[in-house]
Amino acid sequence: MPLLLTNKIVEIENGNILSPQGFTTAGVHAGLRYAKKDLGVIISEIPASSAAVYTTNQFQAAPLKVTQESIASEGFLQAVVVNSACANACTGDRGYMDALKMRSLTSEKFNIKEHYVAVASTGVIGEYLDMDKITNGIESLSPGKLNSDAVDFQTAILTTDIVMKSCGYTASINGRTITIGGAAKGSGMIHPNMATMLGFLTTDAAISSENLSAALKNVTTNTFNQITVDGDTSTNDMVLVMANGMAENHPLTPDHPEWETFIELLTKACEKLAKQIAMDGEGATKLVEVEVLGAKDHEEAKFIAKQIVGSNLVKTAIFGADANWGRIIGAIGQTNALINPHRVDIAIGPIQMLKNSVPCVFSENEARGYLNQPFIKILVDLHVGNGEGKAWGCDLSYNYVKINASYRS
Amino acid sequence: MPLLLTNKIVEIENGNILSPQGFTTAGVHAGLRYAKKDLGVIISEIPASSAAVYTTNQFQAAPLKVTQESIASEGFLQAVVVNSACANACTGDRGYMDALKMRSLTSEKFNIKEHYVAVASTGVIGEYLDMDKITNGIESLSPGKLNSDAVDFQTAILTTDIVMKSCGYTASINGRTITIGGAAKGSGMIHPNMATMLGFLTTDAAISSENLSAALKNVTTNTFNQITVDGDTSTNDMVLVMANGMAENHPLTPDHPEWETFIELLTKACEKLAKQIAMDGEGATKLVEVEVLGAKDHEEAKFIAKQIVGSNLVKTAIFGADANWGRIIGAIGQTNALINPHRVDIAIGPIQMLKNSVPCVFSENEARGYLNQPFIKILVDLHVGNGEGKAWGCDLSYNYVKINASYRS
Repeated sequence: MPLLLTNKIVEIENGNILSPQGFTTAGVHAGLRYAKKDLGVIISEIPASSAAVYTTNQFQAAPLKVTQESIASEGFLQAVVVNSACANACTGDRGYMDALKMRSLTSEKFNIKEHYVAVASTGVIGEYLDMDKITNGIESLSPGKLNSDAVDFQTAILTTDIVMKSCGYTASINGRTITIGGAAKGSGMIHPNMATMLGFLTTDAAISSENLSAALKNVTTNTFNQITVDGDTSTNDMVLVMANGMAENHPLTPDHPEWETFIELLTKACEKLAKQIAMDGEGATKLVEVEVLGAKDHEEAKFIAKQIVGSNLVKTAIFGADANWGRIIGAIGQTNALINPHRVDIAIGPIQMLKNSVPCVFSENEARGYLNQPFIKILVDLHVGNGEGKAWGCDLSYNYVKINASYRS
Repeated sequence: MPLLLTNKIVEIENGNILSPQGFTTAGVHAGLRYAKKDLGVIISEIPASSAAVYTTNQFQAAPLKVTQESIASEGFLQAVVVNSACANACTGDRGYMDALKMRSLTSEKFNIKEHYVAVASTGVIGEYLDMDKITNGIESLSPGKLNSDAVDFQTAILTTDIVMKSCGYTASINGRTITIGGAAKGSGMIHPNMATMLGFLTTDAAISSENLSAALKNVTTNTFNQITVDGDTSTNDMVLVMANGMAENHPLTPDHPEWETFIELLTKACEKLAKQIAMDGEGATKLVEVEVLGAKDHEEAKFIAKQIVGSNLVKTAIFGADANWGRIIGAIGQTNALINPHRVDIAIGPIQMLKNSVPCVFSENEARGYLNQPFIKILVDLHVGNGEGKAWGCDLSYNYVKINASYRS
């Protein structure tokens, strides 16, 4: 049963990368991990206009370079092959050759041009891929169209994630139904710019690679780049979108009357995946949304929202259900953003904590009750301008430490 | 027994704020905390040239404003009064009046000009000082010259700290013995610019307030500002130095032939306190020192060192004694500093992990053994320039979360 979001955008229940027309997928156990699935593929029936955004980390992993080369050739992709367990990062020339080999094996297996294949990896940095296992794994891939196939792919790309992340949304554009689906992984090393996070979006929209790229960059700024789990970016992050045009709409361009509808559709999908990643942050028990209003501009609002949601002290206080708003003040004040120290309002959920920078009287019990919910909203109004922005994160728990103290073991 | 450091600088065993001539101190239980001491004072026999550096957090607490005003008057101080338990931050006009009252009470009690008194506070943000307790507490202060008095002061300024921080160093300058002593607090909210951290330095050197201020700014950049526990700065941080001139040296200026000796003396004292703070980071089990060589310049070296030592992922890996150098790479790469992705060397203690960005073969057992020591050294060489810098921090443990999940409780 679809869930109506606005007049235009409808969420698809259990929507996923197979929701749009013309995509198949698979996920298998290639043996890189002990027992879990660790290799997956998404195939488009026909070459799809494609675009991607990549980590800003200066140590960009080999698979990202190969994917960039593929997309740079013609702007089309027809397959994405992904492995977990090994990031193939800091692996030098050998790592680059391995990523190329992953691409050529996938190309041969599915009879797709090499430069129509994208490669992604996630896992431990500084180890080489076991190419025998990769080779056998790719050989064993048989993509299908069943929901179970999407689940296989969604699980194959996970590392320390506890839950799968997927979404699907649809909108009518000029009488054509445009659908977008997504899958993602990521729960640690998640911060500013494409932290250890992989996002894959499929759509049947008709749109050029250039316009798709512009749309994706615009949307990731407000979604994937506004989540933080631990302030660390990774070498391997990537969000990739393939648009195969099978909805047969009039091609979408910034001048198209429904361009904004498409942007909204893409935003809904990316925001949904981003929030799922934040909620599945390593050790997280709560999803935290910070909204900043009244900032100088949107950029500063987003920056402050992210500073707050990224503060270890705020995160631990939320874990402990402690309404310690002084830490929110600390996080705001340590930015260089324009603030008026006498005009700040802070609310945690429905409870006003600070009004014009003066502490409010509130019930500690009520605050504790709210902070024991699984979704925590922090609202800040700076009263210096019209900038607005949101960011998402999670609390910092014992389990975050536990997971990260022995990740390689 | 003094410990020889260089030709010039000698560390004083159990050195503290009473090591220089002409200072007395006290610490009492004023009742702001349940049982521990919570109010302290340092008194100089005569007015002392003074300087301080303050938090860069935009929500600067009331006591810092009062201290700035005091120093701005004549550049002299004769007393510093400090309380723990309550930060007197985000307390508006009432908080400012309370800080002024703390100053005037101290002025009356010790018969010192008001603007020769500095005020400092640390503790919970957004609560008002209990001025009855402060008043009675200041009345009960009787500063002395015994080591036990220094201990009383050192404990009165602590919050979540587990250990006291103090130091003492001496040097001979033109035949005069110059001594510097210090006390500090801080274990959480510790990052870039004067995070919840108070540092007090006393010296009998003769030096003007202006030159002392220049020296302090220079030195804190490389010491206190290079430690990080959790990436959060606070509203209350301050490092304050009083120089009463009782050593009767020829006044120190940048043109003085022994100016560098004084800078080194001050650096030793600040670095010692800074490291003690890092080692006592909330929940810390290990002190971590990161040294970066071969950066474009010293600024970038310091910045990268601090990024590494501040990374939650690096910190949890060190807690777990896991030689996950990929996280060090991640932390380096997410800066905008100049690097050559093919030329990076990383060593953890004596064990080379990465050479020219290629993973080295190393013994996991040996690495684990090293990482189980209480002092961890990470050395990075970027091979792009001559910039060098160090930063200090600690690991991230279960106890960090425990302490911060219920700080106000």
